[in-house]
Amino acid sequence: MARKIINECHLLPFDLGVRMESMNDMGASSDMLDPGIEVFFDSAPPLKDDISIKRKVKEFIELNSSSSNIHAGNKTVRRIVCVTSGGTTVPLEQRCVRFIDNLSSGHRGAASTEYFVKAGYAVIFLHRRGSCQPYCSTLPEYPFLECFELTGESSVQVHQSHAEVVKRALKSHHSAVERGQLLKLPFTTTFDYLQMLQLIALSMKSLGPLGSFYFAAAVSDFYVPWESMAEHKIQSASGPLDLRLAQVPKMLKVIRDEWAPMAFCISFKLETDTSILLEKANMALRKYDMHAVVANELLTRKEQVTIVTREGSTTVRRGETESDSEVEKPLVKLIVDMHSDYIEESTRIGCEKA
Amino acid sequence: MARKIINECHLLPFDLGVRMESMNDMGASSDMLDPGIEVFFDSAPPLKDDISIKRKVKEFIELNSSSSNIHAGNKTVRRIVCVTSGGTTVPLEQRCVRFIDNLSSGHRGAASTEYFVKAGYAVIFLHRRGSCQPYCSTLPEYPFLECFELTGESSVQVHQSHAEVVKRALKSHHSAVERGQLLKLPFTTTFDYLQMLQLIALSMKSLGPLGSFYFAAAVSDFYVPWESMAEHKIQSASGPLDLRLAQVPKMLKVIRDEWAPMAFCISFKLETDTSILLEKANMALRKYDMHAVVANELLTRKEQVTIVTREGSTTVRRGETESDSEVEKPLVKLIVDMHSDYIEESTRIGCEKA
Repeated sequence: MARKIINECHLLPFDLGVRMESMNDMGASSDMLDPGIEVFFDSAPPLKDDISIKRKVKEFIELNSSSSNIHAGNKTVRRIVCVTSGGTTVPLEQRCVRFIDNLSSGHRGAASTEYFVKAGYAVIFLHRRGSCQPYCSTLPEYPFLECFELTGESSVQVHQSHAEVVKRALKSHHSAVERGQLLKLPFTTTFDYLQMLQLIALSMKSLGPLGSFYFAAAVSDFYVPWESMAEHKIQSASGPLDLRLAQVPKMLKVIRDEWAPMAFCISFKLETDTSILLEKANMALRKYDMHAVVANELLTRKEQVTIVTREGSTTVRRGETESDSEVEKPLVKLIVDMHSDYIEESTRIGCEKA
Repeated sequence: MARKIINECHLLPFDLGVRMESMNDMGASSDMLDPGIEVFFDSAPPLKDDISIKRKVKEFIELNSSSSNIHAGNKTVRRIVCVTSGGTTVPLEQRCVRFIDNLSSGHRGAASTEYFVKAGYAVIFLHRRGSCQPYCSTLPEYPFLECFELTGESSVQVHQSHAEVVKRALKSHHSAVERGQLLKLPFTTTFDYLQMLQLIALSMKSLGPLGSFYFAAAVSDFYVPWESMAEHKIQSASGPLDLRLAQVPKMLKVIRDEWAPMAFCISFKLETDTSILLEKANMALRKYDMHAVVANELLTRKEQVTIVTREGSTTVRRGETESDSEVEKPLVKLIVDMHSDYIEESTRIGCEKA
């Protein structure tokens, strides 16, 4: 459970109402960006449907930060977290046939989304198209074909063996959507992902410390700049293929510095080599000014993770019972508690300043 | 509809019963392979579950070529086609985090499978894990979450708006599986795919011209040999990434020459540049000794395709009505007719020789 904010003055330092002016002026002023970022965004093919995405994000934030969602008696407000999930692709050709991808299934982001919703958050689920969806992790690989059967000519039934998981999944998903707690936005390429992230972050700026980012997506470190990309499919006849990929600039720091500086930010570090994992997580914490970095090792990432903060590190493990079987449960609980402390702290500082 | 084989002597030149010795001796003798192929297979990490895959393929072929499936009165036999579908991945690291992939959704292979089943074929659907599945193409993107709802506490219902497509999909899928006409085998990497293909081809050799391959999968042209691959995740701190990829040897020719020389083989050529498409399809036809090559252009591939054979080329287009809306319908019809001619011709030659 998210802790309740009991400080009366929590509305003072940041405005819960959506600031229309910042929503209408979403482009970050480009002279504040570091040159690598400018090159990246200049090189990116324009995001399709950006107007519709902006509108959805704006409406979702308005809905979840409007007074009807603030239960004055309890002094609770609905926090909003943007959970990023799944891997981003890197096109190798403009008319993309081939691309670089990474193994992320999106399970971490999807499962965490469920626990954030349970803790009362509204979640913007920024996910790789086709990756794991919240409430679906306990289902078979192809739930549609494996869970249902036709009885007689016209009646569809759930297989008895899957009845419980199917009902639980449909019920939980439906109720999250019904309560306006879940907005799902799909991406495919690294170009799409980072443009959508910028748009969401600028929209969430007005939420101050009630906004949060949980960067579970596996964003490619390398990319081929659009203009240096082959237009047509690379031909295979001419021997081995040599590729030179540029580094994707790190956007985490820009979110902290400019796009949504008050948002509570959690990033992830995945390595296959445990000997460098904690050191790399600590480096990321400082370099990108994160509030916490979740360190996970490829082979044990479903069993345990270590949450690294400036104060030290905490390892959480999944439990033995069915209701405790996902490591995302204690992970999200810890993050929610840290977020509560962060909001209290930010509010206190805001009050002192006021 | 597949044409019926009316020639009495069609069992002579090839044995419909599964040859147990060839099933038990699946490795092609390596001194017959071209050196690139040997290097590729030597370098590949061993296929997991190969025993269980072999068993499934063997049982499926036995079931579909056993006498109970040959309706003596009609002189029909069930042909078997291996439809490959979706893209293969190329790992860039041994403990794979990153990989190269391609855009294939698997729609072509999945839709074609439906039409092959309708034409009476048994289909080995060798598909990329998670790619499009037969009978699911008319469903929404996430059919489980979008097609069903919980009514009351415990009853699951199909949304009225999706009722017809859901029922049709479940019915067709169920009946294909029930009649033993569909075996689904998933792959992920290029290494898995080519090892599974070899295993299937060697098992199908005994079917002679009744066996067929429909290579709709998008197999990577390039790969990183296993031993030259980084063991751990490639670090991003040290500047741009330079990759050198080797060419994947073309296996099509080996299938024709050695693994299943009598099988009827259709390959696909996808290009984004129409000016080179037909020329490249013609080259592939000759180089790999295919019976036909289906030429498709990235942007129009769902509207029309051109089937290139030694006799000339035929373009088929999707129709205007709902039942004609998929280009795979006329495409598979043409392929099935060509396969009928091929079986008749092979049988005639076999009879003359006998």
